[in-house]
Amino acid sequence: MKFTAAQIAGLLSGKVEGNPDAEVSNVARIEEGAPGMLSFLANPKYTPYIYETKSSVVIVNDDFDPKAPVAATLIRVPDAYAAFATLLSYYDKMVKGRTGVSSLAFVSKTARYGESVYLGEFAYLGENVVVGNDVKIYPQVYVGDNSVIGDGTTLFPGVKLYNNTIVGKNCTLHAGVVVGSDGFGFAPQANGHYEKVPQVGNVVIEDDVEIGANATIDRSTMGSTRIGKGVKLDNLVMIAHNVELGENTVMAAQTGVSGSTHLGRNCVVGGQVGFAGHLHIADGSKFGAQSGVQGDVEEPNKAFMGSPALPLRQFQRNFIRSKQMEDLFKKVDALEKQIEELKK
Amino acid sequence: MKFTAAQIAGLLSGKVEGNPDAEVSNVARIEEGAPGMLSFLANPKYTPYIYETKSSVVIVNDDFDPKAPVAATLIRVPDAYAAFATLLSYYDKMVKGRTGVSSLAFVSKTARYGESVYLGEFAYLGENVVVGNDVKIYPQVYVGDNSVIGDGTTLFPGVKLYNNTIVGKNCTLHAGVVVGSDGFGFAPQANGHYEKVPQVGNVVIEDDVEIGANATIDRSTMGSTRIGKGVKLDNLVMIAHNVELGENTVMAAQTGVSGSTHLGRNCVVGGQVGFAGHLHIADGSKFGAQSGVQGDVEEPNKAFMGSPALPLRQFQRNFIRSKQMEDLFKKVDALEKQIEELKK
Amino acid sequence: MKFTAAQIAGLLSGKVEGNPDAEVSNVARIEEGAPGMLSFLANPKYTPYIYETKSSVVIVNDDFDPKAPVAATLIRVPDAYAAFATLLSYYDKMVKGRTGVSSLAFVSKTARYGESVYLGEFAYLGENVVVGNDVKIYPQVYVGDNSVIGDGTTLFPGVKLYNNTIVGKNCTLHAGVVVGSDGFGFAPQANGHYEKVPQVGNVVIEDDVEIGANATIDRSTMGSTRIGKGVKLDNLVMIAHNVELGENTVMAAQTGVSGSTHLGRNCVVGGQVGFAGHLHIADGSKFGAQSGVQGDVEEPNKAFMGSPALPLRQFQRNFIRSKQMEDLFKKVDALEKQIEELKK
Repeated sequence: MKFTAAQIAGLLSGKVEGNPDAEVSNVARIEEGAPGMLSFLANPKYTPYIYETKSSVVIVNDDFDPKAPVAATLIRVPDAYAAFATLLSYYDKMVKGRTGVSSLAFVSKTARYGESVYLGEFAYLGENVVVGNDVKIYPQVYVGDNSVIGDGTTLFPGVKLYNNTIVGKNCTLHAGVVVGSDGFGFAPQANGHYEKVPQVGNVVIEDDVEIGANATIDRSTMGSTRIGKGVKLDNLVMIAHNVELGENTVMAAQTGVSGSTHLGRNCVVGGQVGFAGHLHIADGSKFGAQSGVQGDVEEPNKAFMGSPALPLRQFQRNFIRSKQMEDLFKKVDALEKQIEELKK
Repeated sequence: MKFTAAQIAGLLSGKVEGNPDAEVSNVARIEEGAPGMLSFLANPKYTPYIYETKSSVVIVNDDFDPKAPVAATLIRVPDAYAAFATLLSYYDKMVKGRTGVSSLAFVSKTARYGESVYLGEFAYLGENVVVGNDVKIYPQVYVGDNSVIGDGTTLFPGVKLYNNTIVGKNCTLHAGVVVGSDGFGFAPQANGHYEKVPQVGNVVIEDDVEIGANATIDRSTMGSTRIGKGVKLDNLVMIAHNVELGENTVMAAQTGVSGSTHLGRNCVVGGQVGFAGHLHIADGSKFGAQSGVQGDVEEPNKAFMGSPALPLRQFQRNFIRSKQMEDLFKKVDALEKQIEELKK
Repeated sequence: MKFTAAQIAGLLSGKVEGNPDAEVSNVARIEEGAPGMLSFLANPKYTPYIYETKSSVVIVNDDFDPKAPVAATLIRVPDAYAAFATLLSYYDKMVKGRTGVSSLAFVSKTARYGESVYLGEFAYLGENVVVGNDVKIYPQVYVGDNSVIGDGTTLFPGVKLYNNTIVGKNCTLHAGVVVGSDGFGFAPQANGHYEKVPQVGNVVIEDDVEIGANATIDRSTMGSTRIGKGVKLDNLVMIAHNVELGENTVMAAQTGVSGSTHLGRNCVVGGQVGFAGHLHIADGSKFGAQSGVQGDVEEPNKAFMGSPALPLRQFQRNFIRSKQMEDLFKKVDALEKQIEELKK
């Protein structure tokens, strides 16, 4: 899709300076500009680039005062960065704005869906599924029986929701996400075999949640695994059965939470962190990447790191000390000799 | 689906006390009860909840003796917990009990399948595939050429089996599992490029295996990667080429096993553990979460932890010592001063 | 498929010794031979097995001089190992040699594809997609709008490419790979909520790249996440937004690279390694399994290990020292006592 400088200026209530018919079809950093690209200039550090950028159109602050000729068409707005971000949001919504139910999708007789829905090819809606308005279900998505998808939610290609999954409004589940698989519950038998503990609960995902590609969330043994409002989970994260994540908690990629652990609100978890099972983690806790969390955290807003995890400052001191260990060993050997000397 | 107290009591050979027509459609913990829910009371600690639970029906032990009025309909059985678990198993089988071959599935001309099979929409069975009786293949599953699926096995939505994969009886592969992808085998060349080592083996999964969502198992370079009978693998586990896992070995989420490593029977492996390649691990070995296993384990039934992994007790002692390191540094400094003093 | 000894010898320009009509349908290690299997003998260590192998045909070196009767039919070639590898490559290409566009695939009106293409059932090609010659797109693959797939590339079942993804020539993406999902970019708000930072870039994968099952690569916020020529990524690897990987860099399974980190060429990264964001890693850097990389690496061709990562030799010394820590504590206690003694 192409847009003219005039169209963009209209959208942003900005003023065009240069060719109003200059066309752009994509965006680029100003220092990586090319013909047909739209860029922006907000940080003065990047001002020198505006005189040499190849981008066709650049959004600038109202008070930008060129010191040399600028080849690009300019669009002047009060806040160039904010205007650019707004534009990207519009654009993102527009390119994802498709609607319509493909004749190659499978919709069970008892499934219902709202208005302005997109349902792509080879997608599957099971019995009694309820899909809200403005929902986008991409090709090859599976929505199991009795599941409910709230208004404005997007399920990217290949998402799999087991039966009875509840997804709130304005959520985004990226490609390959699995929600509602059985928890890892097995009872060891005397003969060494494992007997499966029946898993009959579900997963509830509240509003405004985003879940990264190929992440997995297991259903509860009974009751619900619960992902709180505004939670953001990165790719390949693993949430086990009976886990609860409080509102606005965020987790970077490849982190795993074991069964029945509850995290509070506004926790910030780095990548590749592991939580043992049955823990309670206070609101606002922070965990550095690759931490291994083995115990409860009772006091809110504390930071941890290491495996096993320690308070951040203690971890940092230990790490510095561990690098000095070689010297310590040598020092102790030297002291030993001096003592021998003194004893004589 | 709804069930009456009388129907459930019939199934469990229990006695109804209260309204035999009370209906339930789901289960809940007794302390989280709601109308239309079925709960159970086995642990005396939870007895107080039975007088206030909103659940419509509660399964109790024969000898339960109420000390106050109970609103819920009771079903008396000899062992309330066992009866409840039995019921969940029945229920689980029933809701997964669908059969029938969808006209929207693709079945190659040379594929064969047994009786009481479920083959969902957009599933694919390649050439010469053999599917046993009572197998459930959910929508969007891919079964490559010459693969064999044993009786009673379930492949949840989106499972991908490459050519020549053998899956035993009564296995469960959760959504997004990939079996039979090429091993990570590349021969470095003088010019820095990597030449692919052809991978022509397959994967053999024995009976009673369960594999968690989005886990991956690579095929052998030649011969078979082998997952022993009764093995349980959690979500996002990675099993590399030529690996062999002994019977009843279990691995928690996000653990990875490198190429050609063999684990014995009845090993218990925590989450996010990594095994180097070409190792032999004795039967009954145990590894704590996030362990990094770099060497063989010859003696059976030993426990390990840490990265690199150490015997568990040594790891624990080291961890305690690492927390005392700051004190040790200070102590050595103090001793140094005392020695200086003594020297004078 | 079956092949006779004569057919194989013809392909390899070898000489048959024994029954030229002996048939094989698969390959096996010589020590695991069985009727109908093809094996090879190159390493003299394995020579004893040739007298007892059950394999029907064995490829041997020209100068192999049997010391006892051999039941198998032999094929003599100058280099048995090389000939066997060549054969596997031929075989691999042959079994993957299918072409044809399934009537059950979805091809948008504006998508185009080249010659000798395989497009499997339930695969999806979006608007303006361009697929080169000899491309294999397996069932249930999703190719988003405006994506480009180079000649000779294979997308195994269930691969998901978001809009605008560019994949080079002769690449292999294994089942379940997701390319182009949104980067994990969220701006924290004063009220604790997170605002999504629009992600409008794409992913560019250069030629000769192989990506393992269920790995994920996020698109750039703006511009491109870039996977260099000849890169090999193992299963469940996670590449975040704006990352760049130099040519011929390889990463073992479950490794993760955070946003905007750039790795140079010919790096070798073990499994379960984590890289922090915004790092620059020099060419030829090596990282042991489970390393946690927190800082830039400026000098090329250095090795690192540990979390946080240290130069390899320092890590090894520290690890040895950590195992001696218990002794050090005891030694310091003993010295303390001796000093007390001396003070008297």
